[in-house]
Amino acid sequence: MAMEGYRGFLALLVLALFFGFLSVICTLVWVLHYREGLGWDGRGAEFNWHPVLLVTGFVFIQGIAIIVYRLPWTWKCSKFLMKSIHAGLNSVAAILAIIALVSAFDYHNTLSIPNMYSLHSWIGLIVVILYILQLVLGLFIFLFPWAPPSLRAIFLPIHVYSGLLLFGSVMIAVLTGMTEKLFFVLPNGLYSLLPPEGVFVNTLSLLVVVFGALIFWIVTRPQWKRPQEPNLTLLQPNGGTAGGVAGSMAIHSDNMDKSDAELNSEAAARKRNFALDETGQRSTM
Amino acid sequence: MAMEGYRGFLALLVLALFFGFLSVICTLVWVLHYREGLGWDGRGAEFNWHPVLLVTGFVFIQGIAIIVYRLPWTWKCSKFLMKSIHAGLNSVAAILAIIALVSAFDYHNTLSIPNMYSLHSWIGLIVVILYILQLVLGLFIFLFPWAPPSLRAIFLPIHVYSGLLLFGSVMIAVLTGMTEKLFFVLPNGLYSLLPPEGVFVNTLSLLVVVFGALIFWIVTRPQWKRPQEPNLTLLQPNGGTAGGVAGSMAIHSDNMDKSDAELNSEAAARKRNFALDETGQRSTM
Repeated sequence: MAMEGYRGFLALLVLALFFGFLSVICTLVWVLHYREGLGWDGRGAEFNWHPVLLVTGFVFIQGIAIIVYRLPWTWKCSKFLMKSIHAGLNSVAAILAIIALVSAFDYHNTLSIPNMYSLHSWIGLIVVILYILQLVLGLFIFLFPWAPPSLRAIFLPIHVYSGLLLFGSVMIAVLTGMTEKLFFVLPNGLYSLLPPEGVFVNTLSLLVVVFGALIFWIVTRPQWKRPQEPNLTLLQPNGGTAGGVAGSMAIHSDNMDKSDAELNSEAAARKRNFALDETGQRSTM
Repeated sequence: MAMEGYRGFLALLVLALFFGFLSVICTLVWVLHYREGLGWDGRGAEFNWHPVLLVTGFVFIQGIAIIVYRLPWTWKCSKFLMKSIHAGLNSVAAILAIIALVSAFDYHNTLSIPNMYSLHSWIGLIVVILYILQLVLGLFIFLFPWAPPSLRAIFLPIHVYSGLLLFGSVMIAVLTGMTEKLFFVLPNGLYSLLPPEGVFVNTLSLLVVVFGALIFWIVTRPQWKRPQEPNLTLLQPNGGTAGGVAGSMAIHSDNMDKSDAELNSEAAARKRNFALDETGQRSTM
């Protein structure tokens, strides 16, 4: 299927991948070159998994999961397959985030450093808990075939909003984390002399924000949305309206489609609802 | 004009105002009760204007500026008036942010503390510069009558996107700022004992994020968008499509309307472009 502004999309996707990879590589360079490297010894090398896994999973993989419906090469794939990939990427991100939390707690406990006092730790833990809640609700409501279309219709705008809000909150968590780590490892005014490590991690943190900004741009362009399934367009009570709404912004809206219907024997009854969901919900964000 | 889901809007607006006010009040309590109070002495009391002015201007006033088009009581006001209010609120926020920067630099210079080494200072300065650029471009392209409709059409999605991105970046700047200030004023592990000031400022920072999340929800509900001007609906080449697009999400899209046209003698020629702008741009976010 043809995509409007395909070249622009491709350029921004390549830019996003570049900044995402660069963020991960720079985080690795940081912990391997400036810090104690990687290990699982309850000390610095174990803690270092914390930024590496979070920038990899919570920033890069979550960012790709957010825009995966936008890739025009996937538009011929079933919506069910794409939802599975979206859920799979987010599950990987969640698992990496949990391992990252374990590495931080384990490190603190080994060295008798208190846990959960800083703003970063509060924001970070809240984001991980809400992210897992979002993932579980997403699986049960949108991927598994049990939820009625009416429930999906109610949750779709909330799911899309929460997804972007969590992605933004991850940025806050990462940058508060980088800030406190820099003050820990460059103490007594050393950070204020702008040593190479300070400049490097400040820059790395800006790369993470640029990656987030690119993902936010890609996901909010209406012309890069996955098109509606053809069978659904035919089901619209008003074909013209459906086309108009499809051109509006919708952030990877998990609209109900043929692949959902095939999971359910009540396909006919649900298809009537799909048309309603399309017009009512596909345009919500 | 009637608003769909008016009670829900009202409830969320009251909640947003509550969290916004509470954030400002708590910032004042922080600097007056836990810190040195407010003054302009080049010392702590001068620095304290920094968080107070930024939470007031860059968080609260900017948040209100973002949703000002959504207030249904203003839908009878001209679009030009609403744009002026939007620009006015953002100008106030920019002025407060500049004074806040001066207070921080002045404080650092008096006490010979280095400037611009931390991640917070980098992010904060970038956000202030880009915010002023966004404001100036917004004035020249959308408020003043000089810009051709084609230029407005190109810049509208960028303006809306940049506005939300800057608002999110302000959250990052505020929370990295709170983090580093807490490590400065509660040094040598004092923060890790969770003293009242630590708990208070962590909580205040979460209030700021909740305010931001409420603004983001309000501005991304398509049903709470300012309706198109009636004269424009009539100008649509396809009335049905206009209705469909109006129902889609658009974050306070500064669509061209009657009040713009009145500023320009080429009204007739431009009105044809408005219809194009409406269908092509109003739905972009």
